[in-house]
Amino acid sequence: MARRTAFFISDRTGLTSESMGKALLDQFEGVTFKHATYPFVDTPEKARAMLQIINAAFEQSNLKPLVFTSIINPEIRAIIKTCNGLHLSFFDAFLGTIERELGLAARNKAGRSHGITDTERYDARMEAVNFSLNHDDGISGKDLKDADVILMGVSRSGKTPTCLYLALQYGIRAANYPLTPDDLESTELPRMVKPYKDKIFGLTIAPERLQAIRQERRPDSNYSSFATCKREVADAQNMFRQHNIPCTNTTDKSVEELAAQIMQSCRLQRRF
Amino acid sequence: MARRTAFFISDRTGLTSESMGKALLDQFEGVTFKHATYPFVDTPEKARAMLQIINAAFEQSNLKPLVFTSIINPEIRAIIKTCNGLHLSFFDAFLGTIERELGLAARNKAGRSHGITDTERYDARMEAVNFSLNHDDGISGKDLKDADVILMGVSRSGKTPTCLYLALQYGIRAANYPLTPDDLESTELPRMVKPYKDKIFGLTIAPERLQAIRQERRPDSNYSSFATCKREVADAQNMFRQHNIPCTNTTDKSVEELAAQIMQSCRLQRRF
Repeated sequence: MARRTAFFISDRTGLTSESMGKALLDQFEGVTFKHATYPFVDTPEKARAMLQIINAAFEQSNLKPLVFTSIINPEIRAIIKTCNGLHLSFFDAFLGTIERELGLAARNKAGRSHGITDTERYDARMEAVNFSLNHDDGISGKDLKDADVILMGVSRSGKTPTCLYLALQYGIRAANYPLTPDDLESTELPRMVKPYKDKIFGLTIAPERLQAIRQERRPDSNYSSFATCKREVADAQNMFRQHNIPCTNTTDKSVEELAAQIMQSCRLQRRF
Repeated sequence: MARRTAFFISDRTGLTSESMGKALLDQFEGVTFKHATYPFVDTPEKARAMLQIINAAFEQSNLKPLVFTSIINPEIRAIIKTCNGLHLSFFDAFLGTIERELGLAARNKAGRSHGITDTERYDARMEAVNFSLNHDDGISGKDLKDADVILMGVSRSGKTPTCLYLALQYGIRAANYPLTPDDLESTELPRMVKPYKDKIFGLTIAPERLQAIRQERRPDSNYSSFATCKREVADAQNMFRQHNIPCTNTTDKSVEELAAQIMQSCRLQRRF
């Protein structure tokens, strides 16, 4: 069966047109699209090559492709607009309205006029990424002191990817404190993190899901047994409750959602 | 001086409204905005609280705030629309057009009808993140065999954050081969990566920038001297040229741009 194609086209990375397009398509149940992302379409020649690809997709399926674009250059946008597809141009939709409100013309080219340079962004990111990586297998008091937030949870509850995402997306220094079976023998906070109670954010997870994840790592071990998973999760939740540690259940959440929730709950500010 | 505020509001993570809004604001030179991101505005009560915040910003500055929203629920969107600001609603702009083209009504609520679940995404990400982390300080032949791409470059040329970003954003298993001074004694490919030549992507960097980064790590060492940086970069570039390794200069690029460029150049497919 011929499927309709959704194109995500950009003269830069394509991340904006992809996230915009996917959020919109997600609103239509029962329709399956073939996705095609094209970043760096930044010359009229590349735009004309794109036209051929879009028009070929139309001819093959006899269904208009949806063409989500985030292309700054008006000349390139105009070329794509002539395609046999439904052109959903993010810049066309909003730029005129903002120009009128600000009483200013858009410059219609890429570049960063405001604020942060790529070098500053890079430095903030690297510092945060190195922070996460350096203590990943053995945390120190200094790490905790310098951390913006401390993610605490049992092994495999999702701390590592969340720390790295916080570092890369927001430049946040996230430390990662794994609750060991020893820590879970009492509901007291582990000695090391106690002085930094206000920075702690807890991660919990459904025992069934935890078991599935641990089973991948160490099949049929005590570590991955359902009894162990269930007990560790319950003990960790008791600890969080006892000390009023804000926490969230990671089971059905994406890393993006976890990170945004932690930013909000811990009132963290993006570093770039 | 009173500054105009740009609000980025969403009933989910806020990443789409932020990236959309910032790309648009970047088109206006010489205007500085105060940025304010509000994720998880997902009830009418929270929307009404938002209204107060937006209207207060208008009263303080006497300048209409720009309000970028990515809010699925039409009721919540309608509340925000009554604010004293310029409402730029991503769903209002496009949803109707797509509904007419598809002959289908949007469901107007969050959720994933198509494709991948959060669990599948999480698993693909974790696998890729673990892959990047596990070999970060000592690569093996097996790592290289299983890698989707191998980033090669001198120490501190940007390999680690790019690998992690590829893992988190696209689910790609990116291995990281640091070119040591030993490797750079000849233009031959290092023995270990030779069998995987087709997966290699090279990172280069301006020697001035490399020196600045290394200086942070090991001040006034041979490692961070300008002569060393300049020589290592030149040797690496010779190696890439000799073997037709595709490569890019990381100096003025963001991690997003590097990752998108590598995806394109190596014809990699997103894993989720």
